[in-house]
Formats: sequence, structure tokens, C-alpha cells
Amino acid sequence: MLDNRALLTDLYQFTMAQAYWQTGKMRDDGCFYLHFRDNPFHGGYAVASGMAEVAKMIDNYSFENEDIKYLASLPAPDGGNLFDPDFLATLNALCLSIDVDAVLEGTVVFPYEPLIRVRGPIIQCQLVETAILNSVNFETLIATKAARVCGVAKGPVAEFGLRRAQGPMGGNLASRAAIVGGCASTSNTMAGKLFDLPVSGTHAHSWVMAHDDELEAFRAYARVMPHNCILLVDTYDVLDGVRNAIIVALEMEQRGQKLSGIRIDSGDLAWLSIQARDLLDEAGLDYVKIVASNDLDEYTIQSLHDQEARIDAWGVGTRLATAYDQPSLGGVYKLCATRAPGQQWTPSLKVSEQVKKSTLPGVLEVRRYFDADGVMVGDMVYDQNMPPRDDLIIDPFDDLRRKDLSSKDHQELLVPLARKGKAVLSAEETSAIRAQQRTLANLQQLHPSNKRLLNPHSYPVGLETQLHGQREALIKAVRGIKD
Amino acid sequence: MLDNRALLTDLYQFTMAQAYWQTGKMRDDGCFYLHFRDNPFHGGYAVASGMAEVAKMIDNYSFENEDIKYLASLPAPDGGNLFDPDFLATLNALCLSIDVDAVLEGTVVFPYEPLIRVRGPIIQCQLVETAILNSVNFETLIATKAARVCGVAKGPVAEFGLRRAQGPMGGNLASRAAIVGGCASTSNTMAGKLFDLPVSGTHAHSWVMAHDDELEAFRAYARVMPHNCILLVDTYDVLDGVRNAIIVALEMEQRGQKLSGIRIDSGDLAWLSIQARDLLDEAGLDYVKIVASNDLDEYTIQSLHDQEARIDAWGVGTRLATAYDQPSLGGVYKLCATRAPGQQWTPSLKVSEQVKKSTLPGVLEVRRYFDADGVMVGDMVYDQNMPPRDDLIIDPFDDLRRKDLSSKDHQELLVPLARKGKAVLSAEETSAIRAQQRTLANLQQLHPSNKRLLNPHSYPVGLETQLHGQREALIKAVRGIKD
Repeated sequence: MLDNRALLTDLYQFTMAQAYWQTGKMRDDGCFYLHFRDNPFHGGYAVASGMAEVAKMIDNYSFENEDIKYLASLPAPDGGNLFDPDFLATLNALCLSIDVDAVLEGTVVFPYEPLIRVRGPIIQCQLVETAILNSVNFETLIATKAARVCGVAKGPVAEFGLRRAQGPMGGNLASRAAIVGGCASTSNTMAGKLFDLPVSGTHAHSWVMAHDDELEAFRAYARVMPHNCILLVDTYDVLDGVRNAIIVALEMEQRGQKLSGIRIDSGDLAWLSIQARDLLDEAGLDYVKIVASNDLDEYTIQSLHDQEARIDAWGVGTRLATAYDQPSLGGVYKLCATRAPGQQWTPSLKVSEQVKKSTLPGVLEVRRYFDADGVMVGDMVYDQNMPPRDDLIIDPFDDLRRKDLSSKDHQELLVPLARKGKAVLSAEETSAIRAQQRTLANLQQLHPSNKRLLNPHSYPVGLETQLHGQREALIKAVRGIKD
Repeated sequence: MLDNRALLTDLYQFTMAQAYWQTGKMRDDGCFYLHFRDNPFHGGYAVASGMAEVAKMIDNYSFENEDIKYLASLPAPDGGNLFDPDFLATLNALCLSIDVDAVLEGTVVFPYEPLIRVRGPIIQCQLVETAILNSVNFETLIATKAARVCGVAKGPVAEFGLRRAQGPMGGNLASRAAIVGGCASTSNTMAGKLFDLPVSGTHAHSWVMAHDDELEAFRAYARVMPHNCILLVDTYDVLDGVRNAIIVALEMEQRGQKLSGIRIDSGDLAWLSIQARDLLDEAGLDYVKIVASNDLDEYTIQSLHDQEARIDAWGVGTRLATAYDQPSLGGVYKLCATRAPGQQWTPSLKVSEQVKKSTLPGVLEVRRYFDADGVMVGDMVYDQNMPPRDDLIIDPFDDLRRKDLSSKDHQELLVPLARKGKAVLSAEETSAIRAQQRTLANLQQLHPSNKRLLNPHSYPVGLETQLHGQREALIKAVRGIKD
């Protein structure tokens, strides 16, 4: 499924690659890292996802003859060809040899720390940039949204946004990332097959409309699908629908069966769920669950709880599968070091007019510190070539803001994802269900103040002392500042 | 590329299909239509797209053995299997026989009118629902966004949102739909190959960072890629970057070459573009274009024009490729008629608690009226089985609001997309470039008041008199209202 993504990249990666090739910089190594600058949804954290897709992309990377033929067909503005045939022959023969390190899926992550680090021939690092960003930006966004929704839901959440998702793989990857973030199931059957996810679903309004009346439709459905039967009660009038569902539930009891639930998909969900609960309970059907859907997200679910809605489970579609209130994570992939053949790494940075767009220089690593209760207390970014001399972290935008993490346990977050162009993550490490377990464990280790929906506490991510010094020196050099 | 989408559907389509199969309704025909309820982006119109994907999906639709094996593996809550083996054998043998009619891509469309109509065995109509919605909702959304952006840009717009798009096909289909909506090119190489789109791009910040200094980087790039050379000037300091680009441009002139442009990707684009234009003009480089990018959309571009920014061309990424301010079109697919074997069509509707969620009953058609200047004046939705007796249209939510369109030219909007389960659209009708021509022609026929960004005039879409009567009678029947 879109396995070979060699062409899934911006054209400028090819024009730059050709320029590197022509200027003899083809053999230089680069080190790039992927990070984002702000937590999505004004939240206090993000949940990493998309690394399994990156591993798959790397394993299936190659320029096939028809890709080369396509690139050869592209015209230059002067009427010739955009690409040199000898350069294209080089691409055709290219075998990835990059090393990739990444945080594992389900890891809770924060702004400015590397989620992925890519080292190797600079051309290769560039060619895979866009596909890596595409996977990690999107899945991390949706896994984070799912974690937020599940965090307030108090009951299972089913993802069913495929029909409003951004294209077929937008839908499939959203379904996967929703599971990584904590959803119980997805309605998307293809995603279920592709990524081994739990799938769920019952019937739609059209089932009711295709019968002469709602009671007949409910009876027919309950008779042929008695297990996990959830009746959608709002095709015509919700409370009439609940009454019809009760008739069917009582008939099912006589057959030794139980109606699993009813679903309400429109109207005032707080008021209707309370009325429906009363009607069900009066009929002795306290075991029948109420499922709600209709443009839900973490805020509407929280509001329904505040109104004491009687909802047991949730169907969340569009606003989860597209991350409606912030449909893109602004992750970027930046050069942090270069190395000529046989030389040491030279740290590199970009200094922007916008200070937040400046980058970190070095072959970056991330170390996470925990207190005695296992609660995360701060993350340190350091340069692999300058091992930390102490446990002090310095805020990258306010160097008088420092935190001493000495005497805390710590853990390295980046683990090998690929070596010499081949993925080395185990099957377990690319499983969505395993990633979900990691998400839940990580969120338990995150302080509640970082998980609030409104104005969460900012989690400390800082630079190791020597890295801070290296960055300051490079910025001064670019800006011509002398001490 | 995701060609077979038989599994790309909500699980409930399969559980409903099995229920239809078990209750003997397998042979009943349904008629469904796809419409949306509100123009996206608070705008006055939408641009239809996604129909080529629907045609491809229909032509490649089949349940392969491994799909059936997957469905057979799904457990029922009681521990048995969710699906009956005989039902799965029926799926395995299924050949689509549906008829599909649709508006052509690039057609300007409005709320409540059918964009797609699907007729055939009700199970088949349901199984393809999710994939049809997925394609048409997303591409229509992005084509509309692109039309809005291009409508204000006064210069070519390049789409380059792949790295922030919602998954790989989110990126590819966004690139295609951006071209349908009017963009000049995309950076996405795979989309270029898949959909025969113009591609563009030059170099990134990393090119500059991988060299010892910016001037050296610019010189190297201009030397090896002199055609359509656009230098990115904001890696360190924008105006220093412009000065370096000028040095290189003058060197290029000595070699008989011309620098195509510079690109500014951060900072105050209005102020910087004016300064850059002055520097370029003072150096005699009035032919060097200024390209701007950095989180642009129709509103920021309009604002830059209002500030008299000197920008000739635009790169638009995230906010176009994800439709950032409204990342999903709420298109729905609703049953509008049913037919038992050998019978006539019976119109069908859903009456919701929310009046805007009620549907239109009948085998629907759309007729568009034009005034003597060729300007669109109103669209009529009617039931194929009750050909219009006059040219009066009635507002579906205010039946005292009517418009007489008699003596106007008119055109039917729905054309055959598939017959008996096979796509019948010509190659020309599925071309993105041809669709772009249709978009531009359609937008010329749309009154400027419908194209305003702020509070556009609402375009009249109404029901034909008999259809209006049919709908009213059915709503009264559902609600038990007697005349």
C-alpha cells in the first residue's frame, strides 16, 4: 500500500540532489532531526506516532524504472530536460544506507526535542525528508488528538472518521494513530486489516429508511445480528426510536438475547441521553448502553459530562480523524551537522528572523529524567559528541531558566529504527496495539498539570550545558557578534 | 495505488450488507445521493472534485481472497464469527452493477444539490458509500480552497503541502485537487507522476546550511541549475540573502543567464518583499521575481496585497493541502429512493431533529439555469420520475421563497460516470488539467457577489414544484401531521 515512496517527495529534493551530485558533495554526510515547535491543540504534550510507516518506507525504498522514466520526462524551462541522465542513473542504482534513530511510537514527546534523527549521505537524508515528515507529522497529530479525547471520555471511544478523512490513506493512518492514542476500535475495515486494529460498527440510518417503519427495521436487525446489536434511534424521532428499541430489547430477552446498546447521532445529546436512560431503566433495561456520536471532540465530551449526560461509549469521527481544530502538526526536519568524508561531524544551525525557527546544532540525543515516583520531570537534548557532564538543562529561549535534574533516574529516548538503510525495529515495536500500551503507560507518568485541556503546565525540555554553549557560539558567529 | 478499495469502508456496511442478505432484501435496489449542507470556508460556492477517483475505485472494485480471509477472521462478541461464510462467498463473487451519475470535476456546486447519484442493488450502494464520500469530500474541499487562494493571488500559486498533509494519499490527492482548483503546479513528485500534474521546486534551507556560507551555496546552485533558478534568501538574514542573490544574479548575467527569482519563507513578507524589490531594482534586476511562502492562505495573501507587498508568485503549503481552517467537508450520502424487484422507485427521506439534516426524496437530478450573458442564476433539483412542469424553484427551508427561472437557458449537471459497474467517463473527463479549465470557466460564469471571501451572496438552489410537494407530504406522514 503505497509501499515504495521514493517519488513521494518534493521536487526540490531531486533538484538539490542533482546539484549535490554535480558539485561533488554527493559523498558528504548530513545529520538531520525532526522536531515540532508547539504542542498541538494548545495542549501540554504530544504522542509520537508514524515511526512504523517510516520503517516500512525505508525498507521499500527504490527508484524503479518507471519512476526514472517519469523524472527523465520532466522539462527544464529552456526546453531541455530538468535532470541529467547520468544523475538519474545514479538514482536508479541508489540503495539507502542511512542510519535512523527515533523515539518509539506511543512515547509522550514535547517541543524542540528530536523525534527522529537521520544520518548518512546528505542526498539520501534529503530524499526521504518529505515522506518522513508526512508520516510523523500526521500520525503524531492524530495520536495526540485521540489521547486527549480518550483522556476525558470515561468509556470506550470508537474512531469512525473515514468518510470525512483526507483521502484513503488519510483515513487509514488516522485510524491507526487513533488506536495508538488510545481508541478502543475503528470503523475502518481496511485499516483493521492493514494494521491489525480492532474494528467495530453496526448499522446506519439507511437501514431504517430501507424498511417500511423503524420498528420493523430494528426487529429485522436484531433478529439477524443479535450479538453486539446497537440500534441507531434517531432516523425520525429519537425518543420514539428509544421506545421502538425497548420493544425489540424485550423481545430479544424472550429469545435469551440482550440488546447491547442504542446510538444517538443528532439532537441535544445531554438531554436526549438522560431521557433515553430513564426510558430504558423504567423498562428494566439498565444493561443497555447508550452510545453517542455527532461531531464530538474532547471539548464536547467534557461538556456532556459536565451536564451529567448518561453516555457510556462514544463514536468520534471527523474531529478526530482530521484533527479538526488543528489539522496539521508543524514538524520540521532540519540539518544539524555535516561531515566530509573521513572527517568529524561539524554542527550546523539555521538562524531565523523568528527566534522559534532557529535550530539546534549537533548530533542530537534526548534523555528523559524521572522522579522517585516515576513521574517525568524534564528532558535534556545533548550532542552525542559531547556526552553530558552534568544534569543541568537550560531553556533554549531563556538561558537564565535552568533546572538541575541530578540524582534522577533517566532514560535515552532515541532508539535505532534503521541501520545502513534497513529497518531494525522489531515487529512488536511497530505494532499499533503495543504502541497504545506505551501511550497509556507514558501518560500515567506525565503529571496531571501537563495533561489539562486548558492552559496546561509547560513540561521542561532544555539543552545540556555544552550544547547550549555550542549553539550560542554559532548564533554569534552568524550574527557577527563578538564577545 | 490503493486501487482496490473494497475494504476501504466502515465495518457497518458489511454488517448491514449481511443483514440485507439474511433478510432477503439483497435484491432490492436503492438510490443514494451525495450532497453537502454548507459551503466550506463560509464561502459562496464549492468546486467539485474526486469523481476521477470514484471512477477508478469502481473499475477496480473486487473482494480478493485475502480480503475475504480477513473478514472471516473477525470475531463476534459471543466468540463465533462475525460473518456467515455463505455471505462472504457472495461478497467474494460480487461484481458491481451500480449506475453512477455525477457532476464533472471543476463544476461549481452548492449546498443541497446532488454531486453524485448511485443506483443499484442496495448492498452495493452501501458498500461503496464510504470510499465515495472519502474521495469527493476531500478533493472538493481542497479544490475549493485552491480556487479561493488562486482567486486572490494575482500570480501563479505552487502547492507544496506534502510534508504537512494528512498521510501520503492525503498529500497526493490534495496536490491533484489543488491543480483542479487552479494552482499552477505542485512540489509533490509522486502526484505529478500519478495524475500528470505540473511539478515545480528549487532548493531548501539545508542547501545553504550544507555550504560554508550563503554566497557560496547560491553560486553553486546557480552554476549547476541555471534554468528556473530561485534562491531561498532567508536561511540567516533575508536582506543579506537578497544582497548575495544579487551578486549571483549579476554573475549569471555575465554568463548570459538570468536568475529567475528569490524566495522569502519567513519574517514580515510585506516589508521584506518591498525592501527586496528595491534592492533588486537598484541592481537592474527588475526581471527577478519575488516568491513568497510561509503559512499563506487566501486571507494572508489578500492582506499582503492590501499592504502593497511586491510578491509575484506564491508557494502555499499546509493551509491549502489540509484546508487548515476547515479540514473536512461535511458531505453525506443519503438514501433517496428504493425499488423492490420489478417495481417503481419509491421516494424515501430521513427527517432529523435538525431540519438541515433532513434529506430530499426521489431519483434526483440537477438543472442549472443561465441568463443571457451566461451567468448562472439558479439550480433546480427535481425527481427524474416527475419531469419539471415549469421553471420555478422553491427554497428547501423556506417555501415562500421562490424564483421563476423561465426563459433561461439551462443545462443538466449530472452525467453518467458508471453504468452496470463500469466507469464510462472518458480520459479527458478524468484529467486534472481539463478539470482546471472547467473550474476557471465555471468561476467566470459565477457572479462576483458569490465569490467574495467575506459574506458572499447565497446562490439560489431550489426544489422543483412537484418534488417540493412530495417532500412535504412525506415529512407530514412521518410526523403524523394531517391536513
